[in-house]
Amino acid sequence: MTGTLYAIGIGPGDPELMTLKAVRILGQVGAICVPKGKEEGASLALSIVRKAVSIEGKEVVEAFFPMKTNDRAANGRDLDARWGETVAALLGRLDKGVDMAFITIGDPTVYSTFFYLYDRLLDARPGLRIEIVPGVSSINAAASRARISLALGEEKVAIMPATNLDGLDAVLAQFDTVVLMKVYKVIDRIVATLAERGLLGQSVYVSRAGMADEFVCTDLAGLKVGDLDYFSLVIVKNRKGA
Amino acid sequence: MTGTLYAIGIGPGDPELMTLKAVRILGQVGAICVPKGKEEGASLALSIVRKAVSIEGKEVVEAFFPMKTNDRAANGRDLDARWGETVAALLGRLDKGVDMAFITIGDPTVYSTFFYLYDRLLDARPGLRIEIVPGVSSINAAASRARISLALGEEKVAIMPATNLDGLDAVLAQFDTVVLMKVYKVIDRIVATLAERGLLGQSVYVSRAGMADEFVCTDLAGLKVGDLDYFSLVIVKNRKGA
Repeated sequence: MTGTLYAIGIGPGDPELMTLKAVRILGQVGAICVPKGKEEGASLALSIVRKAVSIEGKEVVEAFFPMKTNDRAANGRDLDARWGETVAALLGRLDKGVDMAFITIGDPTVYSTFFYLYDRLLDARPGLRIEIVPGVSSINAAASRARISLALGEEKVAIMPATNLDGLDAVLAQFDTVVLMKVYKVIDRIVATLAERGLLGQSVYVSRAGMADEFVCTDLAGLKVGDLDYFSLVIVKNRKGA
Repeated sequence: MTGTLYAIGIGPGDPELMTLKAVRILGQVGAICVPKGKEEGASLALSIVRKAVSIEGKEVVEAFFPMKTNDRAANGRDLDARWGETVAALLGRLDKGVDMAFITIGDPTVYSTFFYLYDRLLDARPGLRIEIVPGVSSINAAASRARISLALGEEKVAIMPATNLDGLDAVLAQFDTVVLMKVYKVIDRIVATLAERGLLGQSVYVSRAGMADEFVCTDLAGLKVGDLDYFSLVIVKNRKGA
């Protein structure tokens, strides 16, 4: 019988923020798949899991998750070939009846590479059993640590990458909370943009929420691009009501 | 020594989606506070906790969380008096050195009444130790069950109550995913609005994600207002890219 693939959100980094379900399934599967070559994500995810679950005796499969945007060597054909290898690596185990877990920091439905794999796996093997196990998203963890409510009552929340701030004014006109993702390379532009709009004092930068070296900062003007962490975001409070 | 208040997200309803941290802290505290008179939320939250943690010997404090919007009997003064009672009920225990947990379905930063309490507690007792423990949000759980990615790559996500759809077109012009909350009383208007915009086929209704009686439905036109559950939402996929 073909194995089941579990896409497991392992939470934001504190092993204690893994769910009981994630821990149970990781204890049961025969193999764990982590994306290779992702900015520190892969080995970090595995190290988080190791703090809550013994992975002794389990096969760790490092697979390519080529991204068009950050893998410039790969043209379209190479990209397909690489995805083909990854799909083959997983199906090779699943077809032998091995249950596998794909682990992702945070939640699998929030900016996780898992969904690129999902479509390709189902194309190759329609009917494959895939279960998605939600986890605590880094967004919720960051808000908790910054002691900020993302939404109350009738409020609206926007979540957007900070790499393109073009539509920001239209967003600020409607939304009470704006969560800016992928801020670490563009914090200078974010600070300038928020300062112009008088929102700097209502903004918080959070990196590595829930990890040992977590950093929560309300003085965004003091942040410097080169110093920042990949796992970081900015929450802008822009309460329209009240 | 004054006790600590833990605001704990217990996840969307499946007891296995509680975090290790939630389970540990709930095992340690002397008292658990649940909001009284909230639409089924209070007893439901406690019943979820009970499936993962023994609460024997712990005091259960049912406290008023008056909402202006759904508690019409309460005028401003009554509201303050009621909040005063709730704050006093918590401080009475905390001042005796009892650690308490306030439990909330999903995550405390996402539409949880906890933040109304938070400000009032700190007004009454600055320096009170309050720890917010994030949980799996119902939004992430619903997306998992519907097998929908909320965001990939450069995509943007909007989360908004469906009770006021006025700004929806501006939101649809910018966002790849729109999560509509509080849909159960207004599903007919939502269906009409999405149908007009050709988005009905790209929308999913999810109720009680992660609970035993979970319901995932892609045929929104068949839903009837009176039949729907309080714990429900609609995810609209509106991919701008690709």
